Amino acid sequence: MMIAEILCVGTELLMGQVLNTNAQFLSRRLSALGVSQYHQTVVGDNADRLEEAYRLALSRADVVITSGGLGPTVDDITKRVAAKVAGKELVLFPQAEEMIRQRFRQYHKNMTPNNMSQAMFTPDTTLLLNAHGTAPGAIVPMGEGKVVIHLPGPPMELQPMWLNQAEPWLQARSGKTLVSRYIRIFGMGESEVDQRLADLETGDNPTLSPYCSLGEVQLRATACADTPEAALQLLQPLIDEVKARLGDVIYAVEDNESGSLARCAVEALKHRGWTISACESLTGGLMTSALVDVPGASTVVRGSMITYQSESKTMLAGVPKELIDRCGVVSAEVAQAMAQGVREKLDTDIAISATGIAGPDGGTPETPVGTVFVGIATRSGARVMHLQLTGSRDRIRTLTMKHAMNAVRQEAERN
Amino acid sequence: MMIAEILCVGTELLMGQVLNTNAQFLSRRLSALGVSQYHQTVVGDNADRLEEAYRLALSRADVVITSGGLGPTVDDITKRVAAKVAGKELVLFPQAEEMIRQRFRQYHKNMTPNNMSQAMFTPDTTLLLNAHGTAPGAIVPMGEGKVVIHLPGPPMELQPMWLNQAEPWLQARSGKTLVSRYIRIFGMGESEVDQRLADLETGDNPTLSPYCSLGEVQLRATACADTPEAALQLLQPLIDEVKARLGDVIYAVEDNESGSLARCAVEALKHRGWTISACESLTGGLMTSALVDVPGASTVVRGSMITYQSESKTMLAGVPKELIDRCGVVSAEVAQAMAQGVREKLDTDIAISATGIAGPDGGTPETPVGTVFVGIATRSGARVMHLQLTGSRDRIRTLTMKHAMNAVRQEAERN
Repeated sequence: MMIAEILCVGTELLMGQVLNTNAQFLSRRLSALGVSQYHQTVVGDNADRLEEAYRLALSRADVVITSGGLGPTVDDITKRVAAKVAGKELVLFPQAEEMIRQRFRQYHKNMTPNNMSQAMFTPDTTLLLNAHGTAPGAIVPMGEGKVVIHLPGPPMELQPMWLNQAEPWLQARSGKTLVSRYIRIFGMGESEVDQRLADLETGDNPTLSPYCSLGEVQLRATACADTPEAALQLLQPLIDEVKARLGDVIYAVEDNESGSLARCAVEALKHRGWTISACESLTGGLMTSALVDVPGASTVVRGSMITYQSESKTMLAGVPKELIDRCGVVSAEVAQAMAQGVREKLDTDIAISATGIAGPDGGTPETPVGTVFVGIATRSGARVMHLQLTGSRDRIRTLTMKHAMNAVRQEAERN
Repeated sequence: MMIAEILCVGTELLMGQVLNTNAQFLSRRLSALGVSQYHQTVVGDNADRLEEAYRLALSRADVVITSGGLGPTVDDITKRVAAKVAGKELVLFPQAEEMIRQRFRQYHKNMTPNNMSQAMFTPDTTLLLNAHGTAPGAIVPMGEGKVVIHLPGPPMELQPMWLNQAEPWLQARSGKTLVSRYIRIFGMGESEVDQRLADLETGDNPTLSPYCSLGEVQLRATACADTPEAALQLLQPLIDEVKARLGDVIYAVEDNESGSLARCAVEALKHRGWTISACESLTGGLMTSALVDVPGASTVVRGSMITYQSESKTMLAGVPKELIDRCGVVSAEVAQAMAQGVREKLDTDIAISATGIAGPDGGTPETPVGTVFVGIATRSGARVMHLQLTGSRDRIRTLTMKHAMNAVRQEAERN
């Protein structure tokens, strides 16, 4: 079992000038690789403290991954201090020098003499070439089978260097392949999911780990094996068991992390050959914007109305003023009329609507903040969902959007 | 000189499931307070490793600030391990118990017996009440004048607790007051801002530090003095100098970090007594959604149309089909007709529109991806901005929204 530790170097991180996205990126990749991590550290550009941090990290981990401090200035001490800890000298690597010269030609910039320090490494180093900047990375043996992996600070340079060079090196060292699947859930809380799957979440291989975003739970199932096929064979029974236990609340099982309810809704609409429109009040454009966020949405999203003030519901969607006066603007009746109104006006196969109180003001004892009605109209009829949401204005609006996206997906998938 | 160290607790951080925004938030605030920081650490939910981390941090710092691990489960060990390090027992704090009971009533949820663990602290603790969750924070004396400050993990709970309770406590301890002002810039790149202000950014007191978000630069000016008035007196000449050097691209100087172009637009509209509507194509609701995000927007935002497909521009906004055929749907003429159409239909004082190519597909040599027209119509006329943007679909749509918000603000502020 390999243990890794991330050591980010840079006073800008200690001052809060930069958000440490590198630590998240690397720890997520390492965790998917089955590499254990127990500590993460940030230190500034100070040689004594960095040396101490190296010694501590190397006493606890097999692989210490640094980010930052590979530039040409005197502040860039990451490699120099690691060499001191290893008890070795830095020497010029001609291949690194050539890469740096090439970058400068490419960027039409002049090299300064101190840029040559970026081509200096301890003699037994494995170079990591940088396709997006002037600082090469390195894999540096530190004795006792331990290594330090140096990566540049800018995420645009660090991420491809990790994915294309460092990670394959680590995988080759372990001789294993990892395969992950992402199971997406809407309509069941984290604690309920946890309760139903607790025994499955304790496994070693495959592993199952939940994480949450607003209103959603995502499960990552990961298996490790000699080949991708063997890993998938380990994974499938776990996925089947999760499906059997959770049923309908699973809206997608995918091989990447970037899915969303809106994308599933757009795909279901495309598959059915349906067009969609929306009439939005409290969501103020969020529902349509979520649909339009999906590349290729233009074949299904015809258009929408944002009827924020009461009169605009009548002016745009043709909701009778009498109906608003009688039932209230936040009511099932008005939500249904909004959905039907926009569907007829834009002649789409399906239409959604939302009216409600996002807060923080505007609630009453009968219609408290968080009361929301979502209307769904198709060519064959209409229905309304009554939601009672809690939390901030932003949360109430976003949850409304997610409920609507889920309803669209279900409606389009229905026979 | 006070030294602080941030210690974030949670296996979810080591796994990369959560981005460590708390470390950035806290280190930025501490740095503004003039508190030194030399290390940041993340450890998982493991008592032995956490104990070791506490001892190491307390050997180096006067104040150790933890985030996370204040929940009711057995995994939540942050307070328990600190108490062990301090050599003290946890006892029930009735005031904390009352706060927790109140939150549960407010959220209409049932308390479980283990929630009582959230009300337990060492006897000499100063409580930090949590206005947005069930976990109280704490300032815990650790001997030798050192303290541990426990904060909850969710940023929505941590940030107000820090700003309203922990930071004033630290300030009172140091006897100094910090005052910050935020100077917001739209329409000038970071390097240009840097070049014009380089000499001002090297000062010690007041300090001036830039940070960027998409299309925007924000400068934080901070001064430290014995009283808020004295700090402001230090600050004002710096702010005046920045204004003199940058001029019109500054759209706001504010005393908090949460400003936005949309908020400034809504405030300018309110001040003028104007109503607004929008006709959105590539932005798909983003412009209206940004306006509606601002609490109290309901008095100015009447409603909008999202005319995503070409026909809907005719059906909803009354853009003549002949005009679209002749000029193309992405054209200044159509943008202007969209803005005028929605303004007349909803009878608002101002209306904005956007049509363009967000990509990744749909570009042509004449109208490449990133071509955008933003229309602005008022009761006295209409104008169109032609933007040529670059980057991802998301970036192009968001920049379009920001340009439109800035135009609304300028139009509403014009005499």
